[in-house]
Amino acid sequence: MTLLLSAHDCDGPGDARALAQRLSALQAGRIRRLAILGKTEGTATLNDFSRELALNAATAAVRNVLGEAMLARTTMVFSTGCEGVITPFGYLMAELTEDAPRDPAGPARLALGVATSPAIPVADRGGRAHALAVAEAVRAAMADAGATADQVALVFVKSPVLPRRHLAELPPGVAARAGSTAFARAVAALGAGIALGEVDSDRVQDAAIGRDTTLHSRRVMAVSGTELAHNEVILLANIPGAGGDLRLESEPLADILDAPALLRLARRAGLAPDAHGLFTGSAPEALFLKVGIRPGGQLRGRRTTVFESEFDADKHLRPVASGLVGAIFGTTRSFISGGAEQQAPPGGGLAAMVVRG
Amino acid sequence: MTLLLSAHDCDGPGDARALAQRLSALQAGRIRRLAILGKTEGTATLNDFSRELALNAATAAVRNVLGEAMLARTTMVFSTGCEGVITPFGYLMAELTEDAPRDPAGPARLALGVATSPAIPVADRGGRAHALAVAEAVRAAMADAGATADQVALVFVKSPVLPRRHLAELPPGVAARAGSTAFARAVAALGAGIALGEVDSDRVQDAAIGRDTTLHSRRVMAVSGTELAHNEVILLANIPGAGGDLRLESEPLADILDAPALLRLARRAGLAPDAHGLFTGSAPEALFLKVGIRPGGQLRGRRTTVFESEFDADKHLRPVASGLVGAIFGTTRSFISGGAEQQAPPGGGLAAMVVRG
Amino acid sequence: MTLLLSAHDCDGPGDARALAQRLSALQAGRIRRLAILGKTEGTATLNDFSRELALNAATAAVRNVLGEAMLARTTMVFSTGCEGVITPFGYLMAELTEDAPRDPAGPARLALGVATSPAIPVADRGGRAHALAVAEAVRAAMADAGATADQVALVFVKSPVLPRRHLAELPPGVAARAGSTAFARAVAALGAGIALGEVDSDRVQDAAIGRDTTLHSRRVMAVSGTELAHNEVILLANIPGAGGDLRLESEPLADILDAPALLRLARRAGLAPDAHGLFTGSAPEALFLKVGIRPGGQLRGRRTTVFESEFDADKHLRPVASGLVGAIFGTTRSFISGGAEQQAPPGGGLAAMVVRG
Amino acid sequence: MTLLLSAHDCDGPGDARALAQRLSALQAGRIRRLAILGKTEGTATLNDFSRELALNAATAAVRNVLGEAMLARTTMVFSTGCEGVITPFGYLMAELTEDAPRDPAGPARLALGVATSPAIPVADRGGRAHALAVAEAVRAAMADAGATADQVALVFVKSPVLPRRHLAELPPGVAARAGSTAFARAVAALGAGIALGEVDSDRVQDAAIGRDTTLHSRRVMAVSGTELAHNEVILLANIPGAGGDLRLESEPLADILDAPALLRLARRAGLAPDAHGLFTGSAPEALFLKVGIRPGGQLRGRRTTVFESEFDADKHLRPVASGLVGAIFGTTRSFISGGAEQQAPPGGGLAAMVVRG
Repeated sequence: MTLLLSAHDCDGPGDARALAQRLSALQAGRIRRLAILGKTEGTATLNDFSRELALNAATAAVRNVLGEAMLARTTMVFSTGCEGVITPFGYLMAELTEDAPRDPAGPARLALGVATSPAIPVADRGGRAHALAVAEAVRAAMADAGATADQVALVFVKSPVLPRRHLAELPPGVAARAGSTAFARAVAALGAGIALGEVDSDRVQDAAIGRDTTLHSRRVMAVSGTELAHNEVILLANIPGAGGDLRLESEPLADILDAPALLRLARRAGLAPDAHGLFTGSAPEALFLKVGIRPGGQLRGRRTTVFESEFDADKHLRPVASGLVGAIFGTTRSFISGGAEQQAPPGGGLAAMVVRG
Repeated sequence: MTLLLSAHDCDGPGDARALAQRLSALQAGRIRRLAILGKTEGTATLNDFSRELALNAATAAVRNVLGEAMLARTTMVFSTGCEGVITPFGYLMAELTEDAPRDPAGPARLALGVATSPAIPVADRGGRAHALAVAEAVRAAMADAGATADQVALVFVKSPVLPRRHLAELPPGVAARAGSTAFARAVAALGAGIALGEVDSDRVQDAAIGRDTTLHSRRVMAVSGTELAHNEVILLANIPGAGGDLRLESEPLADILDAPALLRLARRAGLAPDAHGLFTGSAPEALFLKVGIRPGGQLRGRRTTVFESEFDADKHLRPVASGLVGAIFGTTRSFISGGAEQQAPPGGGLAAMVVRG
Repeated sequence: MTLLLSAHDCDGPGDARALAQRLSALQAGRIRRLAILGKTEGTATLNDFSRELALNAATAAVRNVLGEAMLARTTMVFSTGCEGVITPFGYLMAELTEDAPRDPAGPARLALGVATSPAIPVADRGGRAHALAVAEAVRAAMADAGATADQVALVFVKSPVLPRRHLAELPPGVAARAGSTAFARAVAALGAGIALGEVDSDRVQDAAIGRDTTLHSRRVMAVSGTELAHNEVILLANIPGAGGDLRLESEPLADILDAPALLRLARRAGLAPDAHGLFTGSAPEALFLKVGIRPGGQLRGRRTTVFESEFDADKHLRPVASGLVGAIFGTTRSFISGGAEQQAPPGGGLAAMVVRG
Repeated sequence: MTLLLSAHDCDGPGDARALAQRLSALQAGRIRRLAILGKTEGTATLNDFSRELALNAATAAVRNVLGEAMLARTTMVFSTGCEGVITPFGYLMAELTEDAPRDPAGPARLALGVATSPAIPVADRGGRAHALAVAEAVRAAMADAGATADQVALVFVKSPVLPRRHLAELPPGVAARAGSTAFARAVAALGAGIALGEVDSDRVQDAAIGRDTTLHSRRVMAVSGTELAHNEVILLANIPGAGGDLRLESEPLADILDAPALLRLARRAGLAPDAHGLFTGSAPEALFLKVGIRPGGQLRGRRTTVFESEFDADKHLRPVASGLVGAIFGTTRSFISGGAEQQAPPGGGLAAMVVRG
């Protein structure tokens, strides 16, 4: 199998012209899987509909170009919020079927697996049952990719929020999770962590979710959505003998300003530094960033207003990360997502990049 | 004369405890001028009142610690908006009276001048008359500092917005400026440019303001306010023989992601790079950033949503700049201001730092 | 011809289940025209996408239930913004083909006409050419309905906004209209006024649009959109001998609190008052409200913060009107739209209702 | 004792000119108590500072006009948020010292009592201890007014929010209350209910607060603030023989559209209806409204987006209520506050007015 990856910019939340172009360049007959990972503009508040719109547009583009059958082999995860200088765009990943089996002695190359969990009942969202469903789906995605837990490089999970409109029907303990994108991300991360062997399943109890900061996965980026009831998983693994020429490298971020981690990651991935020691002239094939901030909002020993302002924390974090990425890589095109609950120690995050060779 | 500079964090928009502490460390009898330049949290929309609150708190702190007389010698400019990871804080600058006159053969050191224009009539705001009043005030601040136009290193101007509530009473041409912080900044920058000899006064006509992108000053940072009717000017000049050990260096930013410009500025100012070639270990005494983006919001050849989103452009730009500054200097404490109308070519900006020696 | 009208609530911006149900109750073969007039939730800022989503969902519902051919005979106008207690919903209007011609001696009954203008070039939007294109479209809708100007009871126009992203390419005079929903509504109202003989075409010059408050139509409700480039017109006329049992009555609102006008309108339309003299027990078939406020925001001699706050004026006006309507009619279901530029004298508005018999 | 009441509009959050005028009309020597109850403009999000600004301005006005000693006898409660058509304004209540004791056989007239609780420790906020502190303060205010629980007509409580910045230091159960204005109001209402004998103290346990909807007071309006750590109480009682000519009448609201309740209240209070049966020509001396909506946001059997939108529920409710009040009373000047947690059954609210005679 060979994984191809390309990027496409969007002229608006309903624009899939560049995506259609990328799709039409593929040989439909050789495609085993398609995955689309996109940043869509929008308010990124709970009433945000750009996700549905992006989904509609992308669905229509796939259907128009490749047909209904390909749509069934396509997984899409959209993250809303392009605050700052994030260009609305998407990554298209296509895994091609190859004649030859994987050679275990070959170089480790990027392979793709996907899975979808069943719908999570409203009252289970943000709780242990939700996490276990994610774990199951991540295991299915590993099987789909033919990857062992050790080979998994990065897992994207899109996880459903418990809508606030159900508040009136919920028991108190569950009601506290209503409208919380943080809980939706936390269970997704913990579920993935269970599947990857990084998190002890027994410790993922309702009382620990979103609170026990010693629990976290190191290879997951979780986003939440209000437009879906199930969990979507896109899994990337570096597998010996997988075809193509891509691999994924990642690096934890100590905090949202951890420029040295980005520089280390770029050097390790083999990018060439520019005259200033930055990487403005040699962009990776894909760049993913998950950022968070400590509860309370302290950073580098000083106060920020991330949790004490007119808008949600994510809307502070995403534009900051776009400044960090832009400073180091000179680009506005990266998959930046805010809210790293149980995807890193408090205040930490994760950076990952796909490179050739 | 000797200029002293210190920074003080704020625990809230009404918090002046650290400022009071800094003030009490000064010898009141030796102070010729005080200037306070602060970033205050708040919504930074037109209904924002944190500026008044910060002003009230700072005023009270000065009065309590140094007395009513010192208050008359104090100039305050607050810029609202700490989106992203900007710590609410302020710089206190105190110019001391010295016995000896300046030695023109001495090293160039930082000196301070301040001025206030008369109140700008509502119908004049954002127009040529407003710009000329700023020019006059900047000339007065130069005189106050004993500086020639060439010696001026940086001018801060706070300029009054034309409130939207006057819409009904205004002629159409003027009404277009109502509620526009951009026009308030543009006239401030052009006025300062006239005084500094960088902008031809004859070209500063109503039709050119906010539109003629060939006109701009290179040594001004303009902020707008709704809490004042006059213009406040704080001027910093590097003057041979001025006392103390501070100087100010500046560097134009090609755009809001211009990390190389920050690295150049830091090196030129004499800061020591860290192992990564960044400056996370050697912060300057003060750091000022003015950032903008092209009309339309294009950056590095790609689309951004800065002008097509739920909130004002400034709220996108400030957090991005906080990510840029944090990446290079590892700090959340810098004076970042969005909106560089006629303070730079379209899309450009300005960085400046105060260093010792 | 007979006009049928029904309402359908929406469970979310992408929900068209109730609409599909209403559609399936119609006999497709007898339908000459369909018109859908909807209120969709969303942020109603320039980046709002709920309009596109509603359009997609409604389009799909019509196509699924009635087929592609009917879609071509369907006109949709969505107004975004359900702030306050406005239930997201829509009115479906279906005009049936009848065997018999209209009897000019028959009672005046409601008839429907629709039209679409060509796309308005970006540089023309908000100017005289835009208004003239609307006038042309309204005349076409009159012809479609078989109505004279006198018979027209109410015209809905959806009109394209000049997107801010074009700012950089526009001449100054035109740039002032960029991002302005007010200009989009103003030209729509003036264009309709020209077609209805209420506004003198010669006076609709660029300098007068949005400014000359003596110009206004009395029978138009204009909404603006960023998701379209052309103008959509839905026209309702009371025509002698038109079939069915509906008619439309309207009443100007002196201001957004003009409860007496609503009471007068309800009585004139024949609704039965309740014990308190309100109309909480006898809702009309459809209720339309267009509300505005004076420039400056004064109301009943007092200050409001409609133009001096964190969010756009429309977001203040819509919820207020939902309180007014709810107080008088005891319902959360009405088509409320903010921004009455040149649809009424400054501060005024318009109320209209469809009733039986 | 005689209670005087007047209203004063504000030209901005820092404007106390009209208040100063009202104050200067009083005979300082005869004043026993001053209370100021104000609506201030602002964003009404957690970072809102207009409250502090209003407090500063009002404090300065009292000090300047009546002196430091009177300031100590003055209680101020500000509620932020003038969305819709609420004029920023305040009510000034002054209770004068009289020579004669109250005549128990005299007519019931309005009397004023005030109290302040000690500061509520951060970890106690929103919990039982907070409620008990409010109960104590309300009892103190009753004693101050010389009122029995039965005579109390209305209690205003301003109650401190648990700031989100303390999140990191709090146990899970308490952390759930951080940043919640709802919890701050709930404990205030329950505490007042305990003091008034309407709520059983034993049932006010942490698990019940904000959740047990069978618990509520009927004579309290609770507002929350982030600018204070203690609770402020302003209590109004109708007491036989109290001087002056004012009395307070109140009426529960079944929901936020309960116009009939307002009509009943106005008639009972003795106001004269206009030709339409409304009360647009005979405003009360003061008008107070507390409104809420059911969890989930259903109203009159239909969906609203109050809990599923870009901004907080309060920002939907206040402008709706301003439309309701404006429809019935034709005024923009009333004390409208959103969030009726445990001040009414779910979805309900409270209206009250002060009238003469």
